[in-house]
Amino acid sequence: MIARVSVTLKPSILDPQGTTIHQALESLGFKGVKRVRMGKLIEIELQGGSKAAAKKEVERMCQKLLANPIVEMYRIEIK
Amino acid sequence: MIARVSVTLKPSILDPQGTTIHQALESLGFKGVKRVRMGKLIEIELQGGSKAAAKKEVERMCQKLLANPIVEMYRIEIK
Repeated sequence: MIARVSVTLKPSILDPQGTTIHQALESLGFKGVKRVRMGKLIEIELQGGSKAAAKKEVERMCQKLLANPIVEMYRIEIK
Repeated sequence: MIARVSVTLKPSILDPQGTTIHQALESLGFKGVKRVRMGKLIEIELQGGSKAAAKKEVERMCQKLLANPIVEMYRIEIK
């Protein structure tokens, strides 16, 4: 089973990396970009078990290690 | 319109960041993790236009700036 965890900054937190990408895209001539936000993608391959149990386990991983709840939020997809 | 770009290392490329997360998860007592791969998630907010045109535009952004085609691959989702 594969869990895809997307960790992104909370909307209220400044994202200098995203701003830099935005500026780089504009200087390359890409018009119509309103905003860029940068985040992390963590793909975790898990052994067997049920989808519900996997989601719970990955939720605990996020709380303990993968995300910083002060400034980040996360979304988990199980495939 | 929001484009979500996932940039991940090609499967044949070593991923020391993923390995470190894997080891940290194990040392925290998480069993049953087979593999961890780390990637980047770039959310781009675009002005108007059609989904097909947006995908084409973001594809060009990936080729020109967002991904390194030698070692990385990318996936684009338009919402």
